Amino acid sequence: MADKKVEAITSMEEDFAKWYTDVVVKADLTGYTSVKGFMVLKPAGYAIWELIQKQLDERFKATGVENVYLPLLIPESLLQKEKDHVEGFAPEVAWVTHGGLSELQERLCVRPTSETLFCDFYQKDITSYRDLPKVYNQWCSVVRWEKETRPFLRSREFLWQEGHTAHATAEEAQERTIQMLNVYADFCEQVLAIPVVKGQKTEKEKFAGAVNTYTIEALMHDGKALQSGTSHNFGDGFAKAYGVQYTDKENHLQHVHQTSWGVTTRLIGAIIMVHGDDNGLKLPPKVAPVQVMIVPIQQKKEGVLEKAEELRQKLANVARVKVDATDKSPGFKFAECEMRGIPVRVEIGPRDIENNQCVVVRRDTGEKITVSLDELESKVAELLETIQKDMLETARAHRDSHTYVAKNWDEFVDIVENKPGFIKAMWCGETQCEENIKDQTGASTRCMPFEQENLGDTCVCCGKPAKKMVYFGRAY
Amino acid sequence: MADKKVEAITSMEEDFAKWYTDVVVKADLTGYTSVKGFMVLKPAGYAIWELIQKQLDERFKATGVENVYLPLLIPESLLQKEKDHVEGFAPEVAWVTHGGLSELQERLCVRPTSETLFCDFYQKDITSYRDLPKVYNQWCSVVRWEKETRPFLRSREFLWQEGHTAHATAEEAQERTIQMLNVYADFCEQVLAIPVVKGQKTEKEKFAGAVNTYTIEALMHDGKALQSGTSHNFGDGFAKAYGVQYTDKENHLQHVHQTSWGVTTRLIGAIIMVHGDDNGLKLPPKVAPVQVMIVPIQQKKEGVLEKAEELRQKLANVARVKVDATDKSPGFKFAECEMRGIPVRVEIGPRDIENNQCVVVRRDTGEKITVSLDELESKVAELLETIQKDMLETARAHRDSHTYVAKNWDEFVDIVENKPGFIKAMWCGETQCEENIKDQTGASTRCMPFEQENLGDTCVCCGKPAKKMVYFGRAY
Repeated sequence: MADKKVEAITSMEEDFAKWYTDVVVKADLTGYTSVKGFMVLKPAGYAIWELIQKQLDERFKATGVENVYLPLLIPESLLQKEKDHVEGFAPEVAWVTHGGLSELQERLCVRPTSETLFCDFYQKDITSYRDLPKVYNQWCSVVRWEKETRPFLRSREFLWQEGHTAHATAEEAQERTIQMLNVYADFCEQVLAIPVVKGQKTEKEKFAGAVNTYTIEALMHDGKALQSGTSHNFGDGFAKAYGVQYTDKENHLQHVHQTSWGVTTRLIGAIIMVHGDDNGLKLPPKVAPVQVMIVPIQQKKEGVLEKAEELRQKLANVARVKVDATDKSPGFKFAECEMRGIPVRVEIGPRDIENNQCVVVRRDTGEKITVSLDELESKVAELLETIQKDMLETARAHRDSHTYVAKNWDEFVDIVENKPGFIKAMWCGETQCEENIKDQTGASTRCMPFEQENLGDTCVCCGKPAKKMVYFGRAY
Repeated sequence: MADKKVEAITSMEEDFAKWYTDVVVKADLTGYTSVKGFMVLKPAGYAIWELIQKQLDERFKATGVENVYLPLLIPESLLQKEKDHVEGFAPEVAWVTHGGLSELQERLCVRPTSETLFCDFYQKDITSYRDLPKVYNQWCSVVRWEKETRPFLRSREFLWQEGHTAHATAEEAQERTIQMLNVYADFCEQVLAIPVVKGQKTEKEKFAGAVNTYTIEALMHDGKALQSGTSHNFGDGFAKAYGVQYTDKENHLQHVHQTSWGVTTRLIGAIIMVHGDDNGLKLPPKVAPVQVMIVPIQQKKEGVLEKAEELRQKLANVARVKVDATDKSPGFKFAECEMRGIPVRVEIGPRDIENNQCVVVRRDTGEKITVSLDELESKVAELLETIQKDMLETARAHRDSHTYVAKNWDEFVDIVENKPGFIKAMWCGETQCEENIKDQTGASTRCMPFEQENLGDTCVCCGKPAKKMVYFGRAY
């Protein structure tokens, strides 16, 4: 007898925010802690992050990235060297004032991001053009003292990777900035099955200390946008503030040009909100810790558990697979598989065994297929690929059908109020207009997409000549 | 032209501590930072940790371990619940007192270890015997405010893994404690090529809050011991302090029994000090980020670099391999390969190509072998296995020839002063004797080994009846 039930979760239509929290909890991704704003990543949640990390790290390394580890703490004086950067981060850092039993001579902040540490390190480590480029990355956690927190989307500590590079020329830095944005975009589509819009952030929205910030923006099921990864070109601003110089081939002293780029556990929030439904999580096979769950039916009957184990061993060649042999009812197990987002469920009972077949169920569509046991391995392998592709196409169709064009202010307001989604509109380039739009509608500029379209000649807000087509949206 | 030379390092005989630091720096493992006592793990150092992490994590998972992530910060009140534990750690933690612009109501310490957080989490997450066992682990960094620091051996922040488990019975907790110690011992021998002594820590040396602490102790080249991994059985002490309870099958409320176990980046220090020599680092193939370096000779001659690249592609099937095509001289490259501890060097020049052969050099023995290019792949694969085994046997022979027996106090003092190494001796079991020995000789109890021998009937220090055979040694 099971001692707990898969309880129904709030429906998405009823309350999307509550649906989200319900899924996070019921799918056992995170746990609460006694430290306000901090979360526990439980095995089911952390295993998704491990799969993200592994596959992203492989893509990084294929482009020449090397991993390093820098200190957790930053001296206050080091943080303060780059003006915009310290203004951006100082209000939200945690300060260490005591080490052991004594007060520190200088406060240290827990890293909110590590530009300053990398600059300090590069300043010591780079002397000649022969030392360039440096293409380093670290996987770690950072702390930002957020007021409002939500699991994965915004918390006081989160896991991420931060790449930090130093180059001899501005061109090379710009190339690396875009290269990494493309790595992120490709990763989101091919691994997370999440289509993204690539583009540049406006002056107002760019990173503290950057010359340019580029972003990938994804659309959640509720029509709100989620900034899913960013890549920054710093030019030589940080290098000048921190004295990061090298001698070039002609023996002249030059400043390096730098970039940084990062994605976080926020991507898990994106997976939940792009793919999930009222039965719970839906994991794309490539980031599903368990890809196939075998559920034995009438498992007490002779030979059923043995057969389930036999199938598990076979399927282990093509998938991450488990058998649920607990004493819960099959119906309960089905619901639990769905809640946890397991892409494929295999049902096997006495009658199936007699007929040398089993029932295979897709989490993404709910479709049931009867498969001969002789073909199970190849069918499941094929199905996992199909599900991965179909989930991307479903998400793309949703994104495209929730992307609207606003040619004038009335249309803009109407869309924001009645049709949650991306809004494409022309913009004059002035921060003032951007702020007006945000104040009046809650929609912010998500990015100036690389793929520009000419939707008209005037700014959707002020009517002056337009400079850029922009994606707007309400955002997480 | 190369712009820097592989400078000679201090010899081990002359000054082992300086030799160690030289190797760490010249092999490019770590970098200094502006944060006192904190280090940068540079690519060559971090890549070793990645290989340790990957292979250890696989072994953990094979025993049912699941990874999680818990908060970086611990509220002071939470840290204080287990008396021995807080006494052990409070003097060496870093305190966060401000979040953003405001002072916190309660100080938070940066985790020095996470027993208290896991207890808090388990207290919320465990209700029934069905929730047990919990066999969780996390990979993270911890901070301890050490006064004296040395790269890898002792620093204010280090990387590690910490396993924390909760079990229904005392027997199961004890089994898991020993199981993980065995995983560590096997990993050290099979992957790091470091033989270890397994045993139990004395009352004086055990972990703050543990009932029993078990350890693996390795012997460094200079005859000093290094505690290389520990596994603790907590009994139900933490569970009682933190109220971690479950209802058993008979519906009675019971406290769980807990364990924890960890290894750190200190293992990299062990690799350096067990295997290194006066030419630098010697990496066992299984943790060598580059296992084979191909050095082209007369690389400007037609066809040499092409051949080197062809060999690289072939060898990539059996090893992590690179070509050093920089403009440094071959001699410089050889010295650099040795400094960085690359297990195998392949030299290929015009004459070799003519003769369809190349020269293969072992880092561990310096042996040179001429190998036909047709057989290179299989020979290199074989050689890497041989090196891995031989390095373990060499380390074991060194350890065994530096392990001494002291039957009485005079012998003990003579060995400590003249023969650096492990000392096996009988002990009465009294902390007072242990302290006397340490005060007078600097040698501490390393462990009470599982493999006991009867070396005599009386304590080496006080002459009273002996209870245990103990490994003593000066230690890092």
